[in-house]
Amino acid sequence: MTYDPAASTLRSFHAALPDFEKGTSTPRDFLEGCIEEVKSREDSLKAFVVADWEKARQAADAASKRYRDGSVLSAIDGFPVGVKDIIETRDFPTQMNSPIYTGWQSLRDAACVRGLRLAGAVLPGKTVTTEFACGESGPTLNPHDPDRTPGGSSSGTAASVGGGLMPAGLATQTRASTIRPASYCGAYGFKPTHGSLTLAGVHPVSASLDHLGVIAASVEDGWLIARHIAEFAGGEAGRPPLDGPLAPPEAIQPARIGVIYSSGWSEVDDESANAFMQVEERLADASVTVVSVNADGHIARFEEAIREADPLSVDLMAIELEWPMAAYQEAGGKLGPTISKYVENAKAITNQGYRDRLERRDVMVAEMERLRPEVDVLISLSASGPAPKGLGYTGSRSMIAPWTLLGTPAWSLPVMVSDGMPLGLQVIGFRGDDARLTGICRWITQKLLS
Amino acid sequence: MTYDPAASTLRSFHAALPDFEKGTSTPRDFLEGCIEEVKSREDSLKAFVVADWEKARQAADAASKRYRDGSVLSAIDGFPVGVKDIIETRDFPTQMNSPIYTGWQSLRDAACVRGLRLAGAVLPGKTVTTEFACGESGPTLNPHDPDRTPGGSSSGTAASVGGGLMPAGLATQTRASTIRPASYCGAYGFKPTHGSLTLAGVHPVSASLDHLGVIAASVEDGWLIARHIAEFAGGEAGRPPLDGPLAPPEAIQPARIGVIYSSGWSEVDDESANAFMQVEERLADASVTVVSVNADGHIARFEEAIREADPLSVDLMAIELEWPMAAYQEAGGKLGPTISKYVENAKAITNQGYRDRLERRDVMVAEMERLRPEVDVLISLSASGPAPKGLGYTGSRSMIAPWTLLGTPAWSLPVMVSDGMPLGLQVIGFRGDDARLTGICRWITQKLLS
Repeated sequence: MTYDPAASTLRSFHAALPDFEKGTSTPRDFLEGCIEEVKSREDSLKAFVVADWEKARQAADAASKRYRDGSVLSAIDGFPVGVKDIIETRDFPTQMNSPIYTGWQSLRDAACVRGLRLAGAVLPGKTVTTEFACGESGPTLNPHDPDRTPGGSSSGTAASVGGGLMPAGLATQTRASTIRPASYCGAYGFKPTHGSLTLAGVHPVSASLDHLGVIAASVEDGWLIARHIAEFAGGEAGRPPLDGPLAPPEAIQPARIGVIYSSGWSEVDDESANAFMQVEERLADASVTVVSVNADGHIARFEEAIREADPLSVDLMAIELEWPMAAYQEAGGKLGPTISKYVENAKAITNQGYRDRLERRDVMVAEMERLRPEVDVLISLSASGPAPKGLGYTGSRSMIAPWTLLGTPAWSLPVMVSDGMPLGLQVIGFRGDDARLTGICRWITQKLLS
Repeated sequence: MTYDPAASTLRSFHAALPDFEKGTSTPRDFLEGCIEEVKSREDSLKAFVVADWEKARQAADAASKRYRDGSVLSAIDGFPVGVKDIIETRDFPTQMNSPIYTGWQSLRDAACVRGLRLAGAVLPGKTVTTEFACGESGPTLNPHDPDRTPGGSSSGTAASVGGGLMPAGLATQTRASTIRPASYCGAYGFKPTHGSLTLAGVHPVSASLDHLGVIAASVEDGWLIARHIAEFAGGEAGRPPLDGPLAPPEAIQPARIGVIYSSGWSEVDDESANAFMQVEERLADASVTVVSVNADGHIARFEEAIREADPLSVDLMAIELEWPMAAYQEAGGKLGPTISKYVENAKAITNQGYRDRLERRDVMVAEMERLRPEVDVLISLSASGPAPKGLGYTGSRSMIAPWTLLGTPAWSLPVMVSDGMPLGLQVIGFRGDDARLTGICRWITQKLLS
C-alpha cells in the first residue's frame, strides 16, 4: 500500500487535548488506543525493548484524574512517550543494544525522563536503538514495509510513532539519528538547537555533536515534548534552554525559503528528487520566494563552505567516541564492527588535528550565520531517498549530518512519497530560532497536506 | 610542629626522573617509598577508600622494565597517581562517598584514567571525596594536624600528597575543591582552564563549573599529570585540550602581577593576611611590578565586576546539580543534608533566572579578558586562612569560587604559613594561558622558597 501523506494514520496526543478538556475522552482512553495498536503490531514491528503497559495504565489513570480534578500538570500530562534505550530510566534497564549493558540498571532517570515525569508524561517503555546509537542495528522493522530498515539509531521510537502505536518518543542525533528514521518511518522529527535540551543521563556518542530529539505524530506533538523537556529539565549545563511558548507556536508564513542541494544530492534517486521539486513549486507563490544555489550567491557561497561538513562530522564523531568505546574494550567489553572501526579511525587523529577540525566547524557555523538575514529557513530532503531495503544498513546520513555539525534546529516533515514509501522534507532554521522554525513548519505542513 | 614551606617533605616524581634515566633508581623503587609512607600513616590519615598496592607494584615493575628497555611510554611512565572516588575506574568500585553508590562498579575507566594508563601511570587506588564532591565529608584527616579538616572535596588526594604518601592525585573543582584542599594540606594544586581536560566518566556536580584538577608534590609534577591527560585523553568534547610543552614549562619571570582582594578578604585572619603581604613584598622588585586595587583602575573595575561571583556560582551549582541529585532521591536514594539543601534551593530558580545568571557570568568573563593586556597573572590567597579545626566543615570557598566561575586556570602554591599550618598562594591566569601561568608559578616558587 502506497504511503499517503495526506491520509496520516499518526496518533496525535495534541489533537486529543480538546476532548480531554471537554471530558469526552481521557489520557487513559488515549493510552488504550496505543495499547490496541501495540497488541496488533508490536510482535512483528519490534519497536520496544521492554515495556510495562499496566504501569502505564496507572500513570494514565492518574493523569485522567488530574483532568477531572482540574489539576493538570501541563499540556503533556498523560502523554505516552517512548524512551530510546540509550537514555537512563530508574524503572527499566538501559541496555544500549550492546552486550556490555545487558540487564544494566541505572540508579536514576536521565534529566529528560525526569522532566517528562514531572510534567505528567506516561513512559511505558524503552525503544530499540542501534548499538550505543552508532553501531549495529536492532530488530525493529519499518512500519510501512517490513523488508526495509526503519532507519537508525532511533529505530524503535521512529517505528512506534510512524506505525501509529505512539504519539511521540525520545530520539537522539549525532549525525542523522532523529531526522533519518523519522523520514523513513513517516513521522515528524525535531532536533532542536544543539545544547538547548539536556542530554544528562543519555549515553554519549560524540558530545559536541549529540542532540536530544523528538519523533512525533505532528509538529504540535513534537514541539510540546521538546519544549516541556526544556521547561522541566532545562538545556545542557551552561547553555540556554529551548525557548518559546509552551503551546505549539502559531503557523508562520515565511518570506524567503532557501533550497540546499548539499553533497548528498548526488545520491538522490529521480522519484525522490521529483517529489522534492514539486514541494518547491507548491511552496512558492506571490508572497513566498524560494531561492537556491543557482539564483542566489549567498546560498552558493554557503554550500561551498559546508562542502566538507559530512566527512568533518565523521572525524569529530570518531575522535569523541573513542571514549568510552575504547575504555569498554579495554575492560573486556565487546563492541560491534562499526564502532570498532570508528575507534580504529580515531587513532590517526592528533590533538592538533582535533583542534583544526573544531576551527573548521567554527568557520562553517559563522557562514551559516551570514545566511540569517537572507532567508527564513532552509529546506532539503531529509534523506537521499526512501528507507533502503534490508535491516542491516540504516541508510545514508549525508543530507542530515551537516545540520547536526552546525547545531542548527531542524525538522523532518513526512510530506512526500517515493517508491510508495514516506520521504521527509527537512526544514532547517538558525541556532536558537527553534520556535519560529516550528511555526514555519506548521505553515508548510498545512500548505502541503491540506 | 610548624609547617615549613622551604623544608618540603612532598614526594616529587618529576625530581626522580633523572635517576630513572640514569638507572640509579626505578619507578618500582619510587613506589616502595610511597608504600612505606602509606604503611606508616594511612591508618590514621584515611586518604584512600580502597587501594591495591600489589597490583601497583606490578604496574611499577612494568614501567621499570620499560626504563631498562628504553621503551618508556611518557614522562609519567610509572608515576603513582591517586584517583578521586567520583572518577570511574574499571578495576575499583567508584563510590562517591554516598550510600547510593556503595560497592558500585563502573564498566569502564573515566577518560582521564584511561589517558593516564596509556601514558604508563600507576593507579594504586581511589581517594576519599566528600559525598558526590559537594556534600558530606569523608573520614580523611589533615596530614599536618589530625584535628583539622584536609579540605574538600578532594580530601584524600590532597592529604595523600600533602602528607608525602603520593606524588600526585586527581582532583576536581566546582567551586573550591582542588585549590582549597591543596592549600590546607600543603600541596600544589592546579586547576587548568575550564574544558581543557576531559571530565568524561567523572560524576558531575555542576557541569558548567566542573573542572578536572591535579594536586601534586610540585609545579612540575602537577603540570606533567595535567598535560599528559590532555595528550592521551583530550579535553571536553568540542573544546581545545590543554596545550603547551609536555615537559614542565621553563620558569618565566612576570612583568606585572595583579593582586586581588576579593570578597573573601573580609574573612582573612591577621596572620594569614600578613603572610600574604610579605609574599607581595618579596615578589616585587626592579623588574616585577605588583599592583592592586588601590593603585590600578583596571583592577578596581574588575574587582567591582566580580563582586557577586561567589553567590552566582552557588546559584549555578544548585541549578545544575538538581540533576542527578533529585533523580537519585526520586529513585529512593539517600542524600546528605548539604546536597538536599542545594536541591531545595534550585527549585526557586526559573529557566529565565538561569539564563540571566549565565549572562551575568559572560559579563564577568569579558571583564577578566579586559585585564589580559594589563597583568601577566593575578595573585590572591588560596583560602581565607589555614585549615579550620574539626572535620565536618571543609572551609570557606570565597577566595576560590570566582576563578572557578570564570573558568580561568589557577594554581595553589604552598609557600606560606599561618597558625603553624600551610597556606597556599593562589596564582590565576587567563583562559588558555595555562602553560605560561605554570612557567610563572615555577618562577614564583623558586623565588619564594630558595
